[in-house]
Amino acid sequence: MSAWLTFLAQKRQQHLDELCEFLQIPSVSSLPECAEAVVEAAEWVANRMQSAGIEEVRVFSTGGHPVVYGEHRHATDCPTVLIYGHFDTQPVDPEDLWEQPPFDPLIKNQRIYARGASDNKGPMLIPILAVEALLKTQGTLPVNVKFLFEGQEEIGSPQIPEFLETHQELLSCDLVVSADGVQWAADQPAIYLGFKGICALQVDVRGPVTDLHSGIFGGTVQNPLHALAHLINSMRDADGGICVEGFSDDVQPLNDLDRQQIAAVPFDEEAYKNRLGVKTLFGEPGYTTLERAWSRPTLEVVGVWGGFQDEGIKAVMPAEAHAKISCRLVANQTPQAISEAITRHVVRHTPPGVTATVVSLDSQALPYTIPSDHPGNQAAHAVLKKVYGKDPYYVRLGGTLPICDMFLEKLSAHTVMFAFGLDDECIHAPNEFFRLQSFERGLQAYGLLLEELATYPQGNQ
Amino acid sequence: MSAWLTFLAQKRQQHLDELCEFLQIPSVSSLPECAEAVVEAAEWVANRMQSAGIEEVRVFSTGGHPVVYGEHRHATDCPTVLIYGHFDTQPVDPEDLWEQPPFDPLIKNQRIYARGASDNKGPMLIPILAVEALLKTQGTLPVNVKFLFEGQEEIGSPQIPEFLETHQELLSCDLVVSADGVQWAADQPAIYLGFKGICALQVDVRGPVTDLHSGIFGGTVQNPLHALAHLINSMRDADGGICVEGFSDDVQPLNDLDRQQIAAVPFDEEAYKNRLGVKTLFGEPGYTTLERAWSRPTLEVVGVWGGFQDEGIKAVMPAEAHAKISCRLVANQTPQAISEAITRHVVRHTPPGVTATVVSLDSQALPYTIPSDHPGNQAAHAVLKKVYGKDPYYVRLGGTLPICDMFLEKLSAHTVMFAFGLDDECIHAPNEFFRLQSFERGLQAYGLLLEELATYPQGNQ
Repeated sequence: MSAWLTFLAQKRQQHLDELCEFLQIPSVSSLPECAEAVVEAAEWVANRMQSAGIEEVRVFSTGGHPVVYGEHRHATDCPTVLIYGHFDTQPVDPEDLWEQPPFDPLIKNQRIYARGASDNKGPMLIPILAVEALLKTQGTLPVNVKFLFEGQEEIGSPQIPEFLETHQELLSCDLVVSADGVQWAADQPAIYLGFKGICALQVDVRGPVTDLHSGIFGGTVQNPLHALAHLINSMRDADGGICVEGFSDDVQPLNDLDRQQIAAVPFDEEAYKNRLGVKTLFGEPGYTTLERAWSRPTLEVVGVWGGFQDEGIKAVMPAEAHAKISCRLVANQTPQAISEAITRHVVRHTPPGVTATVVSLDSQALPYTIPSDHPGNQAAHAVLKKVYGKDPYYVRLGGTLPICDMFLEKLSAHTVMFAFGLDDECIHAPNEFFRLQSFERGLQAYGLLLEELATYPQGNQ
Repeated sequence: MSAWLTFLAQKRQQHLDELCEFLQIPSVSSLPECAEAVVEAAEWVANRMQSAGIEEVRVFSTGGHPVVYGEHRHATDCPTVLIYGHFDTQPVDPEDLWEQPPFDPLIKNQRIYARGASDNKGPMLIPILAVEALLKTQGTLPVNVKFLFEGQEEIGSPQIPEFLETHQELLSCDLVVSADGVQWAADQPAIYLGFKGICALQVDVRGPVTDLHSGIFGGTVQNPLHALAHLINSMRDADGGICVEGFSDDVQPLNDLDRQQIAAVPFDEEAYKNRLGVKTLFGEPGYTTLERAWSRPTLEVVGVWGGFQDEGIKAVMPAEAHAKISCRLVANQTPQAISEAITRHVVRHTPPGVTATVVSLDSQALPYTIPSDHPGNQAAHAVLKKVYGKDPYYVRLGGTLPICDMFLEKLSAHTVMFAFGLDDECIHAPNEFFRLQSFERGLQAYGLLLEELATYPQGNQ
């Protein structure tokens, strides 16, 4: 066994304790009241990087949530790898469905439960600890390594493009490796070839100037809740197809290779249904479930509210009704074009008697793709085959990693996904967890990947 | 000036102080945490009745919120009048739209602002004070008077039918006079001939077992928020007509007299629109606005919620979505038949991939009508003409007064509406108020009405 693997085995309990400490910080980037906790998480990461032997560690202000940088650049004539992850988390609601407080980590059945355990605090800690193991046992790294950890991924990384733009030299690299993302299954690795973009909007419907008694005024004025229901219902047809005019104009259709790659991935529809607890799957006709999840755009209302929500009944028609919409985009859709299409649709379909406005929320990202034969993917393939004992699938993800497109645009470097969360780990939902097995496997895999990347072609994009 | 009117004028400031004290009690009947405040309001009413000289005052437990009874029965061979009102209120949300705390009364511009000021604490205090004035100045009343004030009107008076049933002898009367209700305008009285019934329901849509990441799972399963929007949208057509199958089967169509009575009431559509702050009125085609408000059934969603409602965005599809529906019924619809029709409709229109359930909420009442030439209405007409200097309109109300049908069923007595709130007083909404002018006019009118009813035919129904 390599010395660095022995080192990792010896430090196992300490690493778990440190992860628990990290998970106790409520770094919810979307809630203004958690802004200080996001800073605290940044400082925790910076301290841990320094103690790992990483150099030039620095917490950068961005105007929004901070980023953390560090480097170890002593591998002359070797490629430079930028490792990426994020220390911010999603909100915790509905909090009453958590079996323990979401920021009070619980280790049970070889899993660690907490908000952020899988997305992305557990996985982003892995490369820091792997680099520490190499440095403490060998004194050197096989490649030059830079680290960039951010605190605004869950809100669409609003300040990161400008940060990348103004720190291009500091961050210049041959390849980005992302510790954010997921593997296919506990015993099956995968190479990720594409992610969807995102476009988030809020629709606000306003009717009468005040809430109105539903008996005295009912039946005489438009009810904002009915108007909102009409607008939402008008955006998709009964089969789940999106019928917002212009929404799909820029979509690059799936080609034969895309469909073959997707079809080659085993998919058990019954298991999927059982796991989600639904009797029937549902979505746009003419596509398989995986094609819909990975390669077709979506429009999902993620929040609706208006009027009385407490126990019992209140006899009012509310003055306002609201909805939040999250669209996932595929090549070559853009958030701007989608926002405009939805805004036009709302204007066209707003029923008489109310006004409706559409505002973009701070979560906008382009879709991203990387060729399956990219040399970074070849290196990842070799390592994953060694660690898992089998070839990875070539897959995609319906989720959004806005950072990949930003790296491509600002640093001219593709991003290889090399992450060890799994998509059954309740990320963004109550009772999020991370498997301890994935934690250990990731530590090994990151050490091997840095060794493998020593032969990566420099200057490649 | 009669001695009792002089007495009222002398006590004006004391009466306002007492009303403020009454309005400070947060007796919201729909909120479990306010149950003690409803009891406190009952005790306040009982104490005030006793000090007014009303006899046999008693707070009755009902199994739910209490009722308060009192009487003064020394007018031999005269009719018995049961005066009705309620001391519970609607909830206060959205509380941030109130200009002062809703249970901290504010007198400004000859109005008293507080939750319950107009509906119904101000108006129900009037007959107590009027009776006190008669008793303190004359020692007797021109009729026998019974008082019944309840604490569950805003939740549909669930225990009142049983209370009436088990106290038929105590409550027996020739006529009920209701201090709950409204007048037509500050300078125009009205006789109310009908109220709508009510049927309140909650629709709960459930999809996946947990909230799901909208990127990873979006497009593959039914989203409960979309399903709920579809269900709501399916219940009414684009013109506002109700298209729940069977909903209107029992509706008694408007006859020529109904339409003439309604058309005889002046209605300024522009003023109505300006008052509500809407550019367009909206509702079932083929009826005037007043016909829709007064004599046509309605189906209004009064609350919707599901998913993420805070600032920003959360990338989840929620596991559940909910709506509260309030239907107003006209003769001869029944809450049970409407609940069944909506439940059948929901079953028939629930999209694949989710389940939807319908539960009835504790707010159910039959519609009520009283003939325009009823002798109680004739007495009210005479008094209102004296107080306002003009003949009252004969009107209806889209709101619900469930108690009227209960009195007819349990006590075999019709109810004459004799109330002094106005429907622009933000009842059930933020910044509810009651005009001090109405308070004074009501005191005079109640004194006169008791005198007028001395000749009311006993045994009449």
